Formats: sequence, structure tokens, C-alpha cells
Amino acid sequence: MSATNWPSIISELAELEIITDAVQLSKLSLDYYHFSPILSKKLNNKRANLVVRPVNEVEVLKIAQTCVKYQVPLTVRGAGTGNYGQCIPLEGGVVLDTTKMNQIRSLEPGLACVEAGVKMAAFDKKAREIGWELRMAPSTYRTATIGGFIGGGSAGMGSITYGQLRDRGNLQAVRVVTLEDEPRILELRGDDVQKVNHAYGTNGIITELEIPLAPAYPWVELIVIFDQFMRAARFGQALGDSDGIVKKLITIQAWPIPSYLTALEDYLPQGKHAALLMISQYDLEPFQNLVKEYGGEITYQKTATEATKGSSLLEFTWNHTTLHARSIDPNLTYLQTFYFTLERVEQMYDYFGEEAMIHLEFLRVGGKAIPAGLQLIRFTTEERLNEIIRYHEEQGAGIANPHTYILEDGGRKVIDPEQLAFKEKVDPYGLMNPGKMRAWLERAVSV
Amino acid sequence: MSATNWPSIISELAELEIITDAVQLSKLSLDYYHFSPILSKKLNNKRANLVVRPVNEVEVLKIAQTCVKYQVPLTVRGAGTGNYGQCIPLEGGVVLDTTKMNQIRSLEPGLACVEAGVKMAAFDKKAREIGWELRMAPSTYRTATIGGFIGGGSAGMGSITYGQLRDRGNLQAVRVVTLEDEPRILELRGDDVQKVNHAYGTNGIITELEIPLAPAYPWVELIVIFDQFMRAARFGQALGDSDGIVKKLITIQAWPIPSYLTALEDYLPQGKHAALLMISQYDLEPFQNLVKEYGGEITYQKTATEATKGSSLLEFTWNHTTLHARSIDPNLTYLQTFYFTLERVEQMYDYFGEEAMIHLEFLRVGGKAIPAGLQLIRFTTEERLNEIIRYHEEQGAGIANPHTYILEDGGRKVIDPEQLAFKEKVDPYGLMNPGKMRAWLERAVSV
Repeated sequence: MSATNWPSIISELAELEIITDAVQLSKLSLDYYHFSPILSKKLNNKRANLVVRPVNEVEVLKIAQTCVKYQVPLTVRGAGTGNYGQCIPLEGGVVLDTTKMNQIRSLEPGLACVEAGVKMAAFDKKAREIGWELRMAPSTYRTATIGGFIGGGSAGMGSITYGQLRDRGNLQAVRVVTLEDEPRILELRGDDVQKVNHAYGTNGIITELEIPLAPAYPWVELIVIFDQFMRAARFGQALGDSDGIVKKLITIQAWPIPSYLTALEDYLPQGKHAALLMISQYDLEPFQNLVKEYGGEITYQKTATEATKGSSLLEFTWNHTTLHARSIDPNLTYLQTFYFTLERVEQMYDYFGEEAMIHLEFLRVGGKAIPAGLQLIRFTTEERLNEIIRYHEEQGAGIANPHTYILEDGGRKVIDPEQLAFKEKVDPYGLMNPGKMRAWLERAVSV
Repeated sequence: MSATNWPSIISELAELEIITDAVQLSKLSLDYYHFSPILSKKLNNKRANLVVRPVNEVEVLKIAQTCVKYQVPLTVRGAGTGNYGQCIPLEGGVVLDTTKMNQIRSLEPGLACVEAGVKMAAFDKKAREIGWELRMAPSTYRTATIGGFIGGGSAGMGSITYGQLRDRGNLQAVRVVTLEDEPRILELRGDDVQKVNHAYGTNGIITELEIPLAPAYPWVELIVIFDQFMRAARFGQALGDSDGIVKKLITIQAWPIPSYLTALEDYLPQGKHAALLMISQYDLEPFQNLVKEYGGEITYQKTATEATKGSSLLEFTWNHTTLHARSIDPNLTYLQTFYFTLERVEQMYDYFGEEAMIHLEFLRVGGKAIPAGLQLIRFTTEERLNEIIRYHEEQGAGIANPHTYILEDGGRKVIDPEQLAFKEKVDPYGLMNPGKMRAWLERAVSV
């Protein structure tokens, strides 16, 4: 990087918003990688040389041209709310911050077209004016960008109905700027979107997205407590399987996880296991019958109108659970697990005890509601963490390892030949988010 | 019945609309029982002595009082679009025709309250004005009443998303008039609605229902054809499992079933297996990708706006398939089958060939999309029909026998103690739709 002529690059991009202040560079180079003690060590000193904040696709093209011309790495960043260093520039270079590309291009019933930097909660506020909302969103919903969620996310609230971002239909089209000798704008539609979906921005700069919307329900937020953990888990599964009850969020937390949610302590009594939920107001009565069947007790209930004021329960679920827990005990880290069955959840609950405190998020995978885990792990050593992962895998669980920044080593495990082929085409110099795509790294070695 | 003082009854009900004309009595005593050659013989001569058409609950109370006073049977009828004689008065008496009780009491986003005789399509037209529609409806949607569907139906279009009528949440409350010495009006809410849900009107006269609504999508109607039947079946399952594609109807028909749908012959080429579908217009592009993956060919596509004019594809699915096929070959009858898995579908397809032509309707059961069958059977003898049923059951399929008018001998198989207990309370003289509830008949014998 030392040979790079940064003054020339800055001069070429002079008409764009450029950030070179060291404090800002540091802030805009990192994400929530520190949830992982493993990634913490590897990533904490990674910095961009320059952050650029384009306001439109023309400016993005200019940045792409400049990066190709000077052969400098380019890493795309949304709000930096990822957890595995997805947007951390391993080899420095330019970070392209999309947050000023925040125009909603079109918003109609069922479908919207947005620039990559549109924030999810801000979008939803607009969409709800016409009776619609995002199909799914992460717990970082208030600050996260839609482009960032597509580039580095996979599921969230809403996934109990609509599945994962990768599922056909949940992303309809994207516009992508390439890093070819002559950077171009490509439109990918239909199945072709999978070329860049969840690719950490390694093979194209997503500038616009066409996304499907969901009908906006008045979501009631509820906490239900249970004496026994497996009773809570079974309740979560039953709710997930209840086709007649419309829901958006099913989070189950084994005690002592609720003890870390201090803002909710009035509703989370000592020793009780908790379900944090979002349910359609119209289905509240049948929902209460389900709670009764499973012996739960509702301790918190906010109407949709009340829930829009103040903190949403969402911000105590998914990886916000981890955030709150780590703010009290920084030795905690986490795993991401597909248990697939409740039997396996129970086995892990019994086997690990409080070393791996079970936090379930129910979501649909291939048409079925399944329990996925974001367990809190009492971290001791990397060896022990790997042992815990191995044990889960030996027992048939799938671990989406959040302690690696390598795309394929996280959830996917295998190389995606389509994403690699697309990278070979649109990023022939390997400038985009270098070091993240194993398929590219191994190809480079074999050349 | 001969001892009944009908002139007195008629005089007591003089202020109500009463039908005594023999042609009308005949018409209003029967349903589509003739789909079954077995039921045909047993039911074709059953007639009410009197049909009464109340316009409100007060008139229903009056009818109830009169039936109790004179100890005459009372059978509730919606539009008479059932297929197993649900509303055929086995012992004559009074038929209470609900079709004049057709007021929508309230209609708000997500929830409505209707009188039992409200017709489904007419309701939907109103509901769509505020962006909502019924969660599910049968193929007799244009004429069927909401109360009749709850009393005698179980699933229909929409069930691929919302499951069955019996699922918690799909019926929120009912008002019921009893046949006690002093008939009363009871309100059943929440799980208590199961006391009268799908009870063929044997234990209370449903006068009003609170039902949940679904967001109204612009549903595109499509026909997709396939060279191989199992390819079509697998496509149906994949579509049912596609969480990112919003759908309302997945019907799969093995050739030669499509040959019976003569009105659609331009879109159903010789020898091809067909999928008849309703898909959200917003998800059409990902849907087309799924069709491509399974090697299907779209031969028919009507936008939501076009589809509201003329016949809906719905009227070629569910038991309308049987209706059309029987209009060409009256020797055909049908079965209702839970195959549960595609393996079992394939096994039956191979085993029976065209003796049991497979017609699948996908619906959600306990959170999973499963293939249910409304196979067309080339009827020979009752013995052979029972052999076919037995073979299915031996192979692990569940048959909801449509050749019996006995409530428990259809889909449920077992006695529902809650429905029996409710009947004992509200119909102590066993006047309601006598001869249909096995639990009551067996209880009567043991007394």
C-alpha cells in the first residue's frame, strides 16, 4: 500500500465527500467484530486509508474507476453493524460508505426500489404510510442499511414468516457497479441476484435494490415467561407452526440470559426462561390460548402504537441479546447454530449448561419453522470454543461460525462457483474486499 | 314424524319466511352428496318437512323454541355446497336456511364479524375495499356461506398459507343459539369455538362469526404444465416450501384430469400434467424462476384485474375439479387423502394408474406444506372403493372418507368429547341434525 499515490487519488475524488481523519477512519473501518475474541485480535488494527461517501451511482462509478486505475482495494460499508468483519478492510485502501446513497427510488404496494444506503427503520416508516413494511430486518434495524443487510446479513425479525434473505423472492433485483478496466453498471434480476447476495461486497458494489415488501401489521410486543426451558422452546416451535397466528419474532432465551436484559428486569423474574415476541394484534386472542396451553405467563405487552415509542423488543433479540450480555460480561461471546430439532436443543442445553446459554430464534428454512441458536458462550480459550463447535457439529447441528471473516467459513461452508465466476468477471484484479472470499484466494494461489 | 302437528308449527312461525313447496323443499334438503355413489343411494330421498329462512337471531331463537316445543329435528343449511350430506335432514323436520342472515356486522383491518349466511365472494368484495380478504375459502366461494364453511368445511384456497379452519386463530368467536328448553344465545371465544367448529351444526345454530382476515394481494392466476407428473408434484411442494413467494392456491392435476376441464382446453395440452396456481403479482418474477428450475411451461396467466372478470381458476380446483370431471363422466367419484409425503404420492400414482387419478391440493398442516389428495376414482363397486381406501390407509396415508355422512367417520376418525359434551348441554333432546354425530348416537344407545 505504501507505493499508492494517495494524494492523486484524493485529488481525483475531490468532488466527493472524503474522510481522512484518523479517528473517523478508525470508526468507519470497523464493525461489531469484537463480539468475537478470535476476530478481535485479528481485525482490531485494520484501517482504510480513505473513506469516500458517494451520494449517487455516478459518484460510485468514479470511485470504481479510480480504484481500478490506482489498483487499490475497495471495501463497501453500510452502517457497519455486521459481526464478522464483513466490511473491515483487511488490506486497507478505500472504504466506500453507502450511507449518503439513501434515496427511496420507488415505493409501491408489495415492492420497493431503494439505494443501498437507505436505513431500514427509516424506510419502514415511509413504507408503513402505504400499509407495507420490510419482510425482514436485523436487530440493528434502526441504523443498518438495506444494502448492508443484503451484503452481509441473512435473516432477522420477519424470517419466521418469510425465511432467509437467500430464499427466492426475498431480493428481486440489484444494480451493481463493477471494477473492470471500464467499470460498468449491471442489473441482476431474478435468480441472478444470488451472484452478489450475501457476498460481503466481494464481487460488485451494490448501488440499488428491488425488494419485496410485507403487509404491515400492528405488531404487539410481548414477553412470556416459563418455569422450564424446554417448555419455552416447545412453545416457540408451536407458535412457529401455528399457521393461523401471524407473527414476526419468536425469541427464546434460557435463564440466565434474561438477567442480562436489565432494561426489562421488571418483566423477567429470577430463574425464569423468556420468550420475546411480536404477534399480530388481530391474533392476540388465539395467541393467549396458545400461551395458556404451554403454561406460560405474559409479563409484558405493548400495543403496536406503544411499541413504536421507545425501545422495541427487537433490540433485545437476535444479536442485540449478545450486545446486552457482553456489556455486562465482556467474556461472553456467541455461536450461530442450526439445531434443526428441539431434541438437539435439549441435548445441548443439558450437555453444556451455562457454558453455552441457549438463545433461540425461530425462522423458516425450506418451508419449516426451525430453532436456530445464537447461544451465549462463556469464553475461555480458542481451543475450547472450537471443541464446543465440533461437539455441536458431531451431534448433527450446523454451526455458522461467527469467529471467521472468511465468507465460506461462516455459514455456507462450501465455495459458491457462481459468486466466484461473477467475481472473476467484474473484479478481475481482486480489488473488492480482498481476503474475504476463500474461493478467490484459493484460485489466486493455484494460478 | 307423522304425529307432528305441522299446521301448528307453521302457524307459530307465520311471521317468518317459510317454504313448503315440494320442489323447493327437495332442492333445499340436498347438497352435492351425489359426488358419492354410496351417499347417493342413502340420501337422495331425504327431505325436510319445512324450510325456514330467518333474517336475524331473534327469528332463529323463535325457530329454536318452536322445534323444542314440538320436538322436531332442526338442520342448519348454508348454501348447500357440501359434499357429504352435512346439511341433509336425515329425519326430516325443519331446515333452517341461513342465507337471509347476510349482514356484515363489522369489517375492520384484520378482523370481521359476519352473520352466518354471508356469502364468501360477496364478503370478499367488501373486504377488498379496505385491503383485506378471507384467509381461506372453498371452490364454491361464489355461493357458499361463511357459516356453512365453518360448519361443514375444513380448508380451501388460502390454506397453503393459513392452514385449516380448525387451526387456532382461523375462527375467533361464534354466537350460537341452543335448543334447550329455553333456547339461549351463547358466545364462544378463543379455543371454545372448537366446540362447534366443523360439527355439521349438530350442537348449536351458529348465527354470527368473528373471523380473521388476510391482507388482500393482487393474485395472478396461472397454469403451468409439465411432461412428468412427479415433476409437477415436486414443483408444487417446492412452491409450497418457498417462504419468499406469497401464494394462495397450489393445485396439481395428473393427466387425464386436465382433459375434463374443457373450458381451459386451450391451455391444457394432451398428455400434460397441470399446476393451477394463484401467486402474488409482486412475486411473479421469482415464481417464474421456480417454474424454470422445474422445467414447467406457463400456458395461462391472468392478472389479478383480469382474473376478477369471468371464471376464476379456483373454480377448476378443489372439489370443482370433481364437479367438472363428473359432468363428463358421471361414473367418477373421489377420495380425500393426506399423503403427507411425495414418496407416498408417487407410490399411489404408480400403483393405481388411472383408477385413482391424482389431484393434489397443497396446504399447511402443523406448519408444513403437505400434499393432500382429492383423487378422482373410476368407480366400479363399493367393495372396490373400500379396498382402495384400505390400501391407502395401510400405506400410511390418511383418508378423510367423503362417502359417509357421519361426522367422525369422515376426517376426524375419533369422537370429540368436547363437541359431544357441548351437544349434551345445548341440544339435550338430540334434535339438531340427527344421525350425523356418532358420539351422540352411541351415547343414545348406551343410555
